[in-house]
Amino acid sequence: MRFRIEITRRPTISDPEGATAARALRDLGYTGVQGAHVGRVIDLDVDEGTPLESVEEMCERLLANPVIEDYRIVEVE
Amino acid sequence: MRFRIEITRRPTISDPEGATAARALRDLGYTGVQGAHVGRVIDLDVDEGTPLESVEEMCERLLANPVIEDYRIVEVE
Repeated sequence: MRFRIEITRRPTISDPEGATAARALRDLGYTGVQGAHVGRVIDLDVDEGTPLESVEEMCERLLANPVIEDYRIVEVE
Repeated sequence: MRFRIEITRRPTISDPEGATAARALRDLGYTGVQGAHVGRVIDLDVDEGTPLESVEEMCERLLANPVIEDYRIVEVE
């Protein structure tokens, strides 16, 4: 089974990678770009029956940084 | 309006970051982890009326590397 984990910076945390992407797009002529926010997505393949709580624990312990990041987990398969 | 862009490596391209995450999780005791695939997610805020085609062009030109990455765009707001 597969879980998809989306990890994004918390709204108050600065996002230099997103700011750079937005500026580069405007420099390329895409003047309608207002901003960009960059995060990570992790597709995690685990044994059948793995509970959501276990994936949450993996996020807290290793995959995300709860101090500056939010994460969202969805079961996709 | 906001588009969400998910960028993942093409299936045949090696993913050392995902492999490292999976191994680290198993080392932490999560033996049910079979594998992990790490990608990026970009939330792009653009002016109302920006066409999907324009966002596709931004992906091709700057945001993704079409040689080794696939991308998927969805309008979220």
